[in-house]
Amino acid sequence: MGFSLIPKEEKFFDLFETQASHNVEAAKAFKELAQKWSLESPIFDKLRDIEHEADITTHEIIDKLNRTFVTPLDREDIHELASELDDVVDIIQSVSSRMQLYHVNHSSDDLVQMSDILWQATENVRKAVGSLKDMSNSRRLLDYCIEINRLENAGDHGLQVAISKLFSGQPDPLEVIKWKEIYEGLEAATDKCEDIANTIEGIVVKHG
Amino acid sequence: MGFSLIPKEEKFFDLFETQASHNVEAAKAFKELAQKWSLESPIFDKLRDIEHEADITTHEIIDKLNRTFVTPLDREDIHELASELDDVVDIIQSVSSRMQLYHVNHSSDDLVQMSDILWQATENVRKAVGSLKDMSNSRRLLDYCIEINRLENAGDHGLQVAISKLFSGQPDPLEVIKWKEIYEGLEAATDKCEDIANTIEGIVVKHG
Amino acid sequence: MGFSLIPKEEKFFDLFETQASHNVEAAKAFKELAQKWSLESPIFDKLRDIEHEADITTHEIIDKLNRTFVTPLDREDIHELASELDDVVDIIQSVSSRMQLYHVNHSSDDLVQMSDILWQATENVRKAVGSLKDMSNSRRLLDYCIEINRLENAGDHGLQVAISKLFSGQPDPLEVIKWKEIYEGLEAATDKCEDIANTIEGIVVKHG
Repeated sequence: MGFSLIPKEEKFFDLFETQASHNVEAAKAFKELAQKWSLESPIFDKLRDIEHEADITTHEIIDKLNRTFVTPLDREDIHELASELDDVVDIIQSVSSRMQLYHVNHSSDDLVQMSDILWQATENVRKAVGSLKDMSNSRRLLDYCIEINRLENAGDHGLQVAISKLFSGQPDPLEVIKWKEIYEGLEAATDKCEDIANTIEGIVVKHG
Repeated sequence: MGFSLIPKEEKFFDLFETQASHNVEAAKAFKELAQKWSLESPIFDKLRDIEHEADITTHEIIDKLNRTFVTPLDREDIHELASELDDVVDIIQSVSSRMQLYHVNHSSDDLVQMSDILWQATENVRKAVGSLKDMSNSRRLLDYCIEINRLENAGDHGLQVAISKLFSGQPDPLEVIKWKEIYEGLEAATDKCEDIANTIEGIVVKHG
Repeated sequence: MGFSLIPKEEKFFDLFETQASHNVEAAKAFKELAQKWSLESPIFDKLRDIEHEADITTHEIIDKLNRTFVTPLDREDIHELASELDDVVDIIQSVSSRMQLYHVNHSSDDLVQMSDILWQATENVRKAVGSLKDMSNSRRLLDYCIEINRLENAGDHGLQVAISKLFSGQPDPLEVIKWKEIYEGLEAATDKCEDIANTIEGIVVKHG
């Protein structure tokens, strides 16, 4: 039997925090890329590295979950949270990779603004995840979640503005195909932060 | 502890019925919009209101689920059903919102037909959800599910016809991008009704 | 009560193997189609038949799961594995169906290569699923999973090469829309094989 009967509660929370930090790091790097766009930027490689590190952390959590008999949170909540946290960095990296592949030769104000919102969302996710260990302060935790919801709405609005501009006039259809995917990808990352907030809210209620 | 030890079975079923009614309302409104297309239609706001109401109902179910110790159905089935019911109205609203954003200035026969199929599917979902309370009549429940499956096939066929027409001749690529998304969105909503039918079938078998 | 109190362990594993065989069959047929492209190919109908058979098998597993009280694997793992195995054949069939709808009149070297990778991935999934019955040889099981991961990376690389070529020069936007969907669909099927490998790894760890 590979099960450990002694719960190592702290370790799960530490690993969630590591995941959340990877997300902040990736969102910050992407924002910098959007601000100073260059197809030769070292940030593309940096994002690949972060994604790789994040992947290792996620596997560590899932593996620990499968080997641990008594867990500090419901098993399905641990699985959900780990997967959702992993998705954020995955999406950010894949958007940057697609932009490189498309030889996108400029950024846009909308991209900068959307990446700023995403970065703020990941910061609030990191704070919320960091507060999971001590659920006595559930008010603070829920405040972070409310802020993430606000940012997701802002991200959604940002996407609508960007898409509206993208289709206005007589745009090049190939540019539309590329940028629609880029903007929708970035919004999906912010959306995923809201999923994380919902998962955290659920955890708080169960332990409330 | 925020857990209630007394199961309020009825309440879950009532809330599912509320969600299912929101879906019918949204599908019916969308069908009207497709029939009498106008970018100034009050239906866009109506769909936003329905989506907002549906969101509140979904949160109420998830919150109640997290606070309830003994549930009338398996916890994961309650979660699944609530999420899937919520997805339907979300998709309908987002399709309408995208059409508005794209300044789509006409409807199409295919859109009317697909929205009619979707509306019928939501009606059958409502009937099935309304029958969940009393599972003694499982035959009737399964009949609704069979009908939803039939409608999903019809929706899939409708999508294929619409996509085929969309690409025929020398279409404007921008129109193709817009309408492909619209048609596929609508089909995804009907597809989600089939997921709901599958979830309900599973519940019926477990309680059979 | 429709529950069976006697676990029919073997039956679940047999059904998983049937699903995995359907996947191999579908991937092999698609590869042949990509190699000898013709809109009149009988393979389109063959893929529809395989998808239909696979659907029946999946329903049989889910139904058995709902009726069985003691299961040889965790309930959620059975559900996950059955759904993921079903997704592979669904995606392959829907890509072929879309290509037919688009009147795609040629194949491409990239498509042939990606379908070869997918076929290899389904072969390894079949071997892994076939080894689930006897988990004493977990080393072999994990080797299959590692190979599937390698193939997923190859599939991802193949997609990037294909997309890069697709956008190079001054491509017809309509061709880009069609082929982007085809290539991404095929990569999604290989990706799903990796999800299956992850699910299997989790099962192995729990029973290790």
